[in-house]
Amino acid sequence: MEVLNDLIGYKDLKIFQDTEMFNFSLDSVLLPNFVDINNDCKNILDIGTGNAPIPLILTTLTDAHIYGVEIQEKSYRLACKSVEYNNLKNQITIINDDINEISEKFDNEFFDTIVCNPPFFKVFKNSRLNINEEKTIARHEIKLNLDQIFSICKRLLKTNGNIAMVHRPERLIEIIETMRKYKIEPKRIQFVHPKAELEANCVLIEGVKNGKSGLKVLKSIIAHNGDGSYSSDVTCFFS
Amino acid sequence: MEVLNDLIGYKDLKIFQDTEMFNFSLDSVLLPNFVDINNDCKNILDIGTGNAPIPLILTTLTDAHIYGVEIQEKSYRLACKSVEYNNLKNQITIINDDINEISEKFDNEFFDTIVCNPPFFKVFKNSRLNINEEKTIARHEIKLNLDQIFSICKRLLKTNGNIAMVHRPERLIEIIETMRKYKIEPKRIQFVHPKAELEANCVLIEGVKNGKSGLKVLKSIIAHNGDGSYSSDVTCFFS
Repeated sequence: MEVLNDLIGYKDLKIFQDTEMFNFSLDSVLLPNFVDINNDCKNILDIGTGNAPIPLILTTLTDAHIYGVEIQEKSYRLACKSVEYNNLKNQITIINDDINEISEKFDNEFFDTIVCNPPFFKVFKNSRLNINEEKTIARHEIKLNLDQIFSICKRLLKTNGNIAMVHRPERLIEIIETMRKYKIEPKRIQFVHPKAELEANCVLIEGVKNGKSGLKVLKSIIAHNGDGSYSSDVTCFFS
Repeated sequence: MEVLNDLIGYKDLKIFQDTEMFNFSLDSVLLPNFVDINNDCKNILDIGTGNAPIPLILTTLTDAHIYGVEIQEKSYRLACKSVEYNNLKNQITIINDDINEISEKFDNEFFDTIVCNPPFFKVFKNSRLNINEEKTIARHEIKLNLDQIFSICKRLLKTNGNIAMVHRPERLIEIIETMRKYKIEPKRIQFVHPKAELEANCVLIEGVKNGKSGLKVLKSIIAHNGDGSYSSDVTCFFS
């Protein structure tokens, strides 16, 4: 069922969602608020934009043009509806294609900044997945894996351009290794813990193309208060 | 000047220190409390033991035998005095040698667990260092670097044995890369922030020899309260 929701915390933005599909979560709020956007940033790419929560939030933070690429047609259509509804067609372009195909259509080094909230789960040979199911494609590395993402970033990012990603901490080592394979140096990391006393369940990581080594680990984000409500670490992002 | 100090927070342990040398810090308390020591652990190695704060604290946590290797003779002598003073000669053996030489004298896979609080700073060709000075050797990678440490760990650790290290976050990427070069899989990480709102200034990392991939990021340690006193994240370790 298609619904029009508030984009949590952003009272001036609305987003179309399909209750049967993969919908946006806190990750989509944290990533655009984490990424370091330069004042003279002109073009931003969101790889796997889904129904476009990240481009929508980015418009509150930058005047750069934002390209969202989404392989799934249903998500693409919802994204377009939201862009139109929020009067953001001048700042957001949504493209319905496979980023592995379409990356050839952008000039090399076209982007200042890339963001990506990718599928989190590896696909193993013996994984029993319905690979045509929409949620499965959004959550599993069927159409897009880490190697493909950073290979695309290497080509499309300017030197000293940055790529920021949200992912699960258990795969952090592999993310770091793949970044460096493509000459993207991890520079900033921030962990998100559901509560102060719990392990991190989310990591935000930013790398810089051809950057020098030297990592900063930012203050942790504690997502929830003891009573389960969003903490001030999260609500500070809300408009 | 040689002094006999309390080992911060450990009221039953005393440690001999030389006020002109590199002395133990919070790192030496955090590392032994971070490392995962198996119930049937028999032998632990502390690489670069200094005046032996880590072996001393480990005796409060395990019955395993602890070998501390220290290249500097003055630190070695202080370590021996502390071991004797605390009546721990049955559990701690201090060796005055270069770990790069002495590692050959242990059997392969002799150790269940290795700990290391290594020199933190890289040495560059143009670094102007007095390479004979004791503090410099303790702080800079003159006699011991990451590659040597993990190469030694690979040889001396049992399969599934663990190595835990304390280091600075800005070098985390290099640590991870060097661990994996020697088939040591990073499994647990914990960051230490001086205060809740500040970047991490310390990282604890544990790897397992021939371990499977999959990382846990533990709750952060916030070292100090607003008034500068040690927080309960730290004082909980004190006896």
